[in-house]
Amino acid sequence: MLALRVEKKSLSVKEVEKPERAGEAVVRVLLSGICNTDLEIARGYAGFKGTIGHEFVGLVEDSSDRTLIGRRVAGEINAGCGKCDLCRGGDSRHCASRTVLGIVGRDGAHAEFLQLPTENLFPVPENVPDEHAVFTEPLAAACGVLERVSISKSDRVAVIGDGKLGLLCAQVLALTGASLLLIGKHSAKLRIAERRGIETATPKQAAKRSKQFDVVVEASGAAAGFALALELLRPKGQLVLKSTFHGKTEIDAARIVVDEISIVGSRCGRFTPALDFLQRDAIDVDSLISEEYPLSKGVHAMRRAGVKGVLKVLLRP
Amino acid sequence: MLALRVEKKSLSVKEVEKPERAGEAVVRVLLSGICNTDLEIARGYAGFKGTIGHEFVGLVEDSSDRTLIGRRVAGEINAGCGKCDLCRGGDSRHCASRTVLGIVGRDGAHAEFLQLPTENLFPVPENVPDEHAVFTEPLAAACGVLERVSISKSDRVAVIGDGKLGLLCAQVLALTGASLLLIGKHSAKLRIAERRGIETATPKQAAKRSKQFDVVVEASGAAAGFALALELLRPKGQLVLKSTFHGKTEIDAARIVVDEISIVGSRCGRFTPALDFLQRDAIDVDSLISEEYPLSKGVHAMRRAGVKGVLKVLLRP
Repeated sequence: MLALRVEKKSLSVKEVEKPERAGEAVVRVLLSGICNTDLEIARGYAGFKGTIGHEFVGLVEDSSDRTLIGRRVAGEINAGCGKCDLCRGGDSRHCASRTVLGIVGRDGAHAEFLQLPTENLFPVPENVPDEHAVFTEPLAAACGVLERVSISKSDRVAVIGDGKLGLLCAQVLALTGASLLLIGKHSAKLRIAERRGIETATPKQAAKRSKQFDVVVEASGAAAGFALALELLRPKGQLVLKSTFHGKTEIDAARIVVDEISIVGSRCGRFTPALDFLQRDAIDVDSLISEEYPLSKGVHAMRRAGVKGVLKVLLRP
Repeated sequence: MLALRVEKKSLSVKEVEKPERAGEAVVRVLLSGICNTDLEIARGYAGFKGTIGHEFVGLVEDSSDRTLIGRRVAGEINAGCGKCDLCRGGDSRHCASRTVLGIVGRDGAHAEFLQLPTENLFPVPENVPDEHAVFTEPLAAACGVLERVSISKSDRVAVIGDGKLGLLCAQVLALTGASLLLIGKHSAKLRIAERRGIETATPKQAAKRSKQFDVVVEASGAAAGFALALELLRPKGQLVLKSTFHGKTEIDAARIVVDEISIVGSRCGRFTPALDFLQRDAIDVDSLISEEYPLSKGVHAMRRAGVKGVLKVLLRP
């Protein structure tokens, strides 16, 4: 089968064996999405070698659960050991010996087939088209913010970053009824949020609203975003770090202590609320799709996904 | 009256007018304690000019509450505007227009007299000697950790830093019944905790217990302490920043996101639990007193407080 592989920091689409992990489900990929993490892995982040990709929708070809076969699914990307306290407590996302689809110790989704434990698969409601279902994983990550902070209607919330993740976070958080501001530098991207009735601002405009926000979600992954977030938070406010920062980030730790700020890391989220939003068509993901390529053009697609202004790039095996 | 003053970054004890803020209580200082923050203010931190010092016990000379006159008190150091939402909600510690005793816009405690709003004063129980009561403010700060994170008996907790603040935090947190480890570099200081049955370790020894702690309190104020704290925390663990860091601190923000760590700043705490601990003699503060000087020797006392190995230095007007 064809797969988009990272090997010794070089990226290529090549013919490889169909995956054969005993006891796991096999999924024929219908559509996969390129995430910024894919670009970082291709640059050597996390030292991963193998098939990249972790956002997908596919058809179950084989599973110990016969009722799943032939069904369309999305998949939780963390596969835990099943034995540690975290796994037994129902959250394998932090299992110390977990594999992660296309990220840690497990071939990923930019391929004709992938494997995951059957319990990682979530059937996709019929009315959700493939082009929406492929957003289940990143949308779950956006929903994950609400697993880490509780937001009420009276809260003033800002999201920093108008990339794919920022746009998903802004839409999810706007649905809480809280007053929401999306902060970004790209007017075309900000317009996607504005069409949903979300207020937007440039970082410069936003900086005038110092100490006015109860919750700020940092989804730009830039040190400047972190600094702006601290600037915007009221005393005892909460900062959610949503983007993976690479290398060391300089912060003003005194500000955190003096104003008793909370900083909360947030990575993956649960799939059920994301699929629920997609079924209700509550989130605009169509506007986030920039381009689609056949899997065979995976290397070109990855290059396109790194171009400024390009949002989601999809691959079709 | 005599007062220990910072003026243009130079430190001196000089004769000044007795404070006369209309409507505030006047306290005759019996004993004041030198905090690391005093040393930083003398080096120019926060741009404060005036009488420094914010840890004290004293006798009320004048107050709108006549029942307080002649009583021995400790004092909450933040004086709010009384009008904003925070003040009206009963927490003036984050009021944007607050003054802070000996730190922001208000002369402090290393003086014969000080002033605070009457509502900032807390009577000291009779059985608490002055030498213990002078620890009310730093002990309240240590108790403040428990306002920011809840700790249960089954939690594994580490405190980093064996200075005055670390030793107070370790003792307070040990009283929760949680398993506690105090991490520091100075065997003489660690022994103070060991005498209270608290386990101790050097940073090197502690580093072997990677990802094993539910809560880590950073009370060293050093970037290395911050990094060790992140290393020790389990996924979804909580880091309490207790020391004020100066300048920029480099952190591994990716670790916060991937392991969904929470970081919580903690500054001042409430006085009531601290006075309760002192009344019950539940915390060893005697061992934290290194030296005492008359206020007239304040400049020398400040120098001594900055010497390695010296813990609390007290000033007696």
